[in-house]
Amino acid sequence: MSLIPVEIDTPDIMVELGVLERNIERMAAALRAKGLRLRPHAKTHKMPEIAARQLAAGAVGLTVATIGEAEVFAEHGATDLFIAYPLWIGPRQAERLRRLAGPVRIAIGVDSVEAAEAAGRHLGSAAGDIEAVVEIDSGHHRSGVRPEQAVAVARAAAGAGLRVGGLFTFPGHGYAPGMPAKAAEEEQQALGRAAELLAAAGFELTRVSGGSTPTAELTGTAELTGAAEQAGPSALTEVRPGVYVFGDAQQLELGRCTAADIALTVAATVVSRHEGNDATPRRLVLDAGSKVLGGDRPAWATGYGRLMDHPEARITALSEHHATVVWPEGVDLPALGERLRVIPNHVCVAVNLVDDVAVVSEGRLVDRWRVAARGRNS
Amino acid sequence: MSLIPVEIDTPDIMVELGVLERNIERMAAALRAKGLRLRPHAKTHKMPEIAARQLAAGAVGLTVATIGEAEVFAEHGATDLFIAYPLWIGPRQAERLRRLAGPVRIAIGVDSVEAAEAAGRHLGSAAGDIEAVVEIDSGHHRSGVRPEQAVAVARAAAGAGLRVGGLFTFPGHGYAPGMPAKAAEEEQQALGRAAELLAAAGFELTRVSGGSTPTAELTGTAELTGAAEQAGPSALTEVRPGVYVFGDAQQLELGRCTAADIALTVAATVVSRHEGNDATPRRLVLDAGSKVLGGDRPAWATGYGRLMDHPEARITALSEHHATVVWPEGVDLPALGERLRVIPNHVCVAVNLVDDVAVVSEGRLVDRWRVAARGRNS
Repeated sequence: MSLIPVEIDTPDIMVELGVLERNIERMAAALRAKGLRLRPHAKTHKMPEIAARQLAAGAVGLTVATIGEAEVFAEHGATDLFIAYPLWIGPRQAERLRRLAGPVRIAIGVDSVEAAEAAGRHLGSAAGDIEAVVEIDSGHHRSGVRPEQAVAVARAAAGAGLRVGGLFTFPGHGYAPGMPAKAAEEEQQALGRAAELLAAAGFELTRVSGGSTPTAELTGTAELTGAAEQAGPSALTEVRPGVYVFGDAQQLELGRCTAADIALTVAATVVSRHEGNDATPRRLVLDAGSKVLGGDRPAWATGYGRLMDHPEARITALSEHHATVVWPEGVDLPALGERLRVIPNHVCVAVNLVDDVAVVSEGRLVDRWRVAARGRNS
Repeated sequence: MSLIPVEIDTPDIMVELGVLERNIERMAAALRAKGLRLRPHAKTHKMPEIAARQLAAGAVGLTVATIGEAEVFAEHGATDLFIAYPLWIGPRQAERLRRLAGPVRIAIGVDSVEAAEAAGRHLGSAAGDIEAVVEIDSGHHRSGVRPEQAVAVARAAAGAGLRVGGLFTFPGHGYAPGMPAKAAEEEQQALGRAAELLAAAGFELTRVSGGSTPTAELTGTAELTGAAEQAGPSALTEVRPGVYVFGDAQQLELGRCTAADIALTVAATVVSRHEGNDATPRRLVLDAGSKVLGGDRPAWATGYGRLMDHPEARITALSEHHATVVWPEGVDLPALGERLRVIPNHVCVAVNLVDDVAVVSEGRLVDRWRVAARGRNS
């Protein structure tokens, strides 16, 4: 009674339709209850079929990472897109943004005076059609400015002719054990502080955007304590979780979802099988490697993904076409040719490796969806 | 005087044509001088234009990892393909192999009695058109059997109707500091021992296949010592390096190539720039993340890739669309908007992320090549 439809050749990515739709509905309901707008990050799935379900469930628009992703979702009918990235805009990027900004409401990230000036220079009169959203570093220390630098960037954006609409941050330091609550707290604090400063400088903000899958459901909840509570949930107006539609092994090991919430797995076949000896571990090899699972492995993860139906197994090594799975003593090794479901560590990079995915419901293959924005890196 | 042609939007993968052709010629010459056949692994590049250059330089055929890759290279004229993977063959895989085996000489990996039997069962009378190559574990402990198990697998393959042609191994444990020579030595020993046992059992071998980029140039050289020398270079008849066409940051840090040998880089733009303070490092952010560089990072690597023209910089974190690059004190931080070349850690996974690559010569964009076998995971 395999849960992998017989038509599927391995390795292949399978999306469990019922679980996907439940995840979409649950996040939408949780944020609706808190009065927060949901703008899901579409880089996770890159599929118009999933974006349509998110919008139908009440998402106000989509978040994307690149102009190329914005183009794909605009072609498929999206009308409100936030490119949550500190774009460096030259003549060609400006031309593409101008074309998008006619039919679509477009917002872009800005985190420097120089980038704001470059955007204004190349966008020309179209700059006023585009909303600039100042990126704040809330503790992840990647891109983004400190709250006290936000006014300078906002002034440069306004001076360049962009419409300054708000603030955003990515609390990426929440992707580690014990960190989601702390990251959500720091997100509230940093955005709250920057919003105060911008308001004092005369900017009227309509967007204070935060969130990620590990932190989104914590925003404005009792899990947040101390200073963040004082800043209050109202510091944020929208959140941008991405991974929640599928879940992945990282979220599972962080305790932000359960195995029952995992909507995406990689179907794989046991191609090599070895009882251990003194020199080598008891292991099997699956035909799903880093070219379908993705190679992400945070230091705190227990392996390169998890097996859906064998929580005791560990993927200890990953090559391009091989996953080496160490099997505990006392548990039967699956047979050669058996097909197993693997949960990738980081679902966003797994989806980006395939041209389409198998859509599965109650053990049957019901559709294939194209990963329409796959590889749209620029 | 940027080395990135102005037509290129970042992030994008660039292949430097002159360096590529020199790498292809050098490996071919090195192996020709030793009397070893070169069967380069095409999973690294997945491009017919590069395969054609390898064959023109004297490669006897190509290695691939999947039936899908074999199909792509066969469509582009390859006539001799070794799928160096322990395939699990069902009815659909058998049908595809039957179609391939008409015009193309096809060999496949086998590492178990069960897989040999499954292959025979589904291939039927076509089994005799396909060469079985028994996979040996030479110390990487992934797939492959111990030398003393090779005869049982070979007998099963012969019993299933396959033509038993030889042995192969992948000395993947050579991808670590100080390991290439040891891995090459163990490869010789394991293949030599298995070849003796198969010969004693009456098998006539035409292929003893080893090699990888870190070990290929060591095969049969003075860098090998001890027992391996006794087995002698003649234990191998062919080698299957892949990465050598491009080089990558792993090979660079292993000392198996120099920066001048790197033929593939990712063009990236500085999108965020931060002088450090007590809480945050002095850093810049490039628009090339794991969705174009790949996320591989072995424990011994100094970061998530290297910067071609800034050997002192380190990529300390990689998100999907951001590389965080920590910059040493005393060296000027590049300006926002500056374009830099990034060397991926593992070039095989980087190439598999893009639909095509920019071909560059003397600072000019001369062509774009499609990554024809991209995503052909099954």
